[in-house]
Amino acid sequence: MRLPEWLAWRAVATPERTALIWRQRAWTFAELAQDADRMARQLAGLGVGPGDRIAACLSNRPELVVLAHAVSRLGAVLVPLNIRLTPQELFIVLSDADPRVVLVEAATRQAVGLWAGTVVEVESELVQLPEAMVDLRRDVEVEAVHTLIYTSGTTDRPKGVLLTYGNHWWSAVGSHLNLGVLPDDRWLLCLPLFHVGGLSILFRSVIGGFAVELHERFDAALANAAIERGVTLVSLVGTMLWRMLEERGERCYPAHLRAVLLGGGPAPRPLLERCVAVGLPVLQTYGLTETASQLATLAPEDALRKLGSAGKPLYPNALRIVLPDGKIAGPGEPGEIEIQGPVVTPGYWRRPDLTARAFSDGWLRTGDIGYLDEEGYLYVLDRRDDLIVTGGENVFPAEVEAVLLGHPAVAEVAVIGIPDVEWGQRVAAFVVLRGGMRATEKELVAWCRTRLAGYKVPRVIQFVEQLPRTASGKLQRWLLRQAWECTVHGRTSGTGELHQV
Amino acid sequence: MRLPEWLAWRAVATPERTALIWRQRAWTFAELAQDADRMARQLAGLGVGPGDRIAACLSNRPELVVLAHAVSRLGAVLVPLNIRLTPQELFIVLSDADPRVVLVEAATRQAVGLWAGTVVEVESELVQLPEAMVDLRRDVEVEAVHTLIYTSGTTDRPKGVLLTYGNHWWSAVGSHLNLGVLPDDRWLLCLPLFHVGGLSILFRSVIGGFAVELHERFDAALANAAIERGVTLVSLVGTMLWRMLEERGERCYPAHLRAVLLGGGPAPRPLLERCVAVGLPVLQTYGLTETASQLATLAPEDALRKLGSAGKPLYPNALRIVLPDGKIAGPGEPGEIEIQGPVVTPGYWRRPDLTARAFSDGWLRTGDIGYLDEEGYLYVLDRRDDLIVTGGENVFPAEVEAVLLGHPAVAEVAVIGIPDVEWGQRVAAFVVLRGGMRATEKELVAWCRTRLAGYKVPRVIQFVEQLPRTASGKLQRWLLRQAWECTVHGRTSGTGELHQV
Repeated sequence: MRLPEWLAWRAVATPERTALIWRQRAWTFAELAQDADRMARQLAGLGVGPGDRIAACLSNRPELVVLAHAVSRLGAVLVPLNIRLTPQELFIVLSDADPRVVLVEAATRQAVGLWAGTVVEVESELVQLPEAMVDLRRDVEVEAVHTLIYTSGTTDRPKGVLLTYGNHWWSAVGSHLNLGVLPDDRWLLCLPLFHVGGLSILFRSVIGGFAVELHERFDAALANAAIERGVTLVSLVGTMLWRMLEERGERCYPAHLRAVLLGGGPAPRPLLERCVAVGLPVLQTYGLTETASQLATLAPEDALRKLGSAGKPLYPNALRIVLPDGKIAGPGEPGEIEIQGPVVTPGYWRRPDLTARAFSDGWLRTGDIGYLDEEGYLYVLDRRDDLIVTGGENVFPAEVEAVLLGHPAVAEVAVIGIPDVEWGQRVAAFVVLRGGMRATEKELVAWCRTRLAGYKVPRVIQFVEQLPRTASGKLQRWLLRQAWECTVHGRTSGTGELHQV
Repeated sequence: MRLPEWLAWRAVATPERTALIWRQRAWTFAELAQDADRMARQLAGLGVGPGDRIAACLSNRPELVVLAHAVSRLGAVLVPLNIRLTPQELFIVLSDADPRVVLVEAATRQAVGLWAGTVVEVESELVQLPEAMVDLRRDVEVEAVHTLIYTSGTTDRPKGVLLTYGNHWWSAVGSHLNLGVLPDDRWLLCLPLFHVGGLSILFRSVIGGFAVELHERFDAALANAAIERGVTLVSLVGTMLWRMLEERGERCYPAHLRAVLLGGGPAPRPLLERCVAVGLPVLQTYGLTETASQLATLAPEDALRKLGSAGKPLYPNALRIVLPDGKIAGPGEPGEIEIQGPVVTPGYWRRPDLTARAFSDGWLRTGDIGYLDEEGYLYVLDRRDDLIVTGGENVFPAEVEAVLLGHPAVAEVAVIGIPDVEWGQRVAAFVVLRGGMRATEKELVAWCRTRLAGYKVPRVIQFVEQLPRTASGKLQRWLLRQAWECTVHGRTSGTGELHQV
């Protein structure tokens, strides 16, 4: 099925409506479409055609918004890069994505320096390129790929999630049918655009016909001021919300703020309760890069009654909880969350092995653990594969462990997330040193800092004599988490398996 | 593609939200779904299965709302009957639709008396039927037919429009993306449910998750009171709007009223201007039974700037204006309106001839005349095939002409719509009597009254010596309309072809 390209449609249907607000400037849908057409023609001049990847190593800025629509006019694929990655990490991702061109800004040019392909700076270079007089697409095929997003920069196995126009369309419509949508809505976008949680707001905006207020980076005071000035919807992760509450104090939020979508892992209950106290209509969501953002979200009327739940799947998607033996879980029984529906990715870029393993009978196996209550509301207990979510960023323990194992003094290591009221989780590493060798916490942190994006570097390093493992040698991370909590609470570890050096 | 059945979904996603308000009673989505399930099982007990038609000769009442959803659970097809039709007209429609069962109320039982099939009264009989323990459908195929609506009760050629789940889905989503949708919206439904303009509100409601306030019939005072009490959206035809303004006087309408959708043919400009004066956010729409209601609607921000226009097509549909020579019209050039998109009917029931004629290269030829202005806004000049729209009801001149020609004294007749500030149009007949025979206006009106639904009976009968025809004998109705206007305005007809007796 083909659909009219969203921004091109809005440029005809509601040309004068505000599409984008950035600092002191605003774009109407007509102006944004004009910019997207120009950029599409400039990229065509660089040889970009249908199916080609265009990588963007850009912070939140209008050019990245324009690019997200320009690729649709060309049938090209957007690859938003996490600007916090190290040059090595970016090199590995770029080698996998194999883009025709990488767009950078002054601050990110060096970070992609290891990559040998075409690099174009948006401010000084792209704007000066001539426009190729190609035919731009006015509609999109729902099965075609729009975005390739990397969920992990692990050194050996980059994992690029493919998202189609259909994934983005159903994600936006499902959100609108849950939260509602109004022509004069304004959505505050202060999440990074290189994450699906930020990027998806752009599609909700052009499909629903309302404005996005884009912030270069999250700033609690600026976010609070934007809400005061007229923002009606905002997407946040727990860390941001916590800081906004700290900044604002006890004052209630204005009534025009219709909903605060809270993603990035299960939120601590005290945070949710504090929101209720100041009249923040906070709705916890559950989503993955693989589902083009929200898969489940609380309905507004359940915000208080079901505090802590991520609600029910958005139309027309489905979820189920599966027990280790393959049976469907009953109410209250935790198991693996599996999902199905038109928001679900068709698979991973050039990784048929991962794609095959991710699906079972047409259901995406998330690896996340949760349960449904008697009324069918989802509660997420733990993220997949021991994923750590810190300040909204995903950290895969295996990646941090690989770097630490590269240090000559480290024999064994286990990385987990430990609870943190501000960051949701912090990265902690439990290290067993090689016999006769020594290393300090400071040394190991410095070792990581040159090899990993800052948010992945362990905040805590504990030296231990051995790691808890099963008889077959499998690491038991949950025992480490339990032991950590006992340590923090001054109690003796019940497991007896963790011995601090 | 399959989608979860809308009401069943709402009964899970937002079970406690109000779905329907009727007099002093309200139903939640869970309660409405329960009623639909029960009715589906009772109908299954009568032998209704997938593909079977269920006709409903019912006024606006909760049972008709429930039925519209019950058919989805069975895969059956709803055939809403116009309760204003005469027994003869209903017999012809029923013979064509060939339903498994006809649901009636006490007041309509007699009207379907000519039909020999199963007739069940909803109040006294249906409620007492046992429920068959069949499996109810939880999802729907978008290509499957949900509704069969007759647009004309002409004696020789009933014309049943097929509407699929996909038609209704895209119609609802297109409307929501244009007007916006909120969980606490309330849509006043005072149009007949047997017309697509009324019926489509039910799908918008279950898809968007907001309440419908159903009125048994239109009453200006009750409609005004409902708006005062909290209605945020309402669909009307010009006649209704005119009466509401009369009833309310100069008082402004409350700000929570987000939009008044105005259908049923081009609205007189003075009516629109009067709405603006009292703060009524009136949006003219253009739609057909063949497009599952609205095809084009003004965007809210254009309400004043483009007064009189029906706006632009709703996402993702397209329209174009075609000149008699097949070329696409330029801005301002009137021609036939042709439409394309997922709201368009797959065709007419058991009339492949009509279906083939209605489409040209995948575009539905509406027969309606209109033009697009320089910015692409649609202005509808005249309805198809000289269709008369009076108080929101469609009257086909050929049908009224056929009845008048049956009168022994009538040699020739032409029926047209003449402008009327309250009704939009009134039915007028120009009659040539047989040589030597006589008939009075009163006699002819009485003749029609026993053979036609009341709204089809001519309000004006003019006796003339001859009718304006082309050289090839084709009736020139537009000359009659022109002549009528000249008569009303006291000027001489410029055509000279119309001679009053």
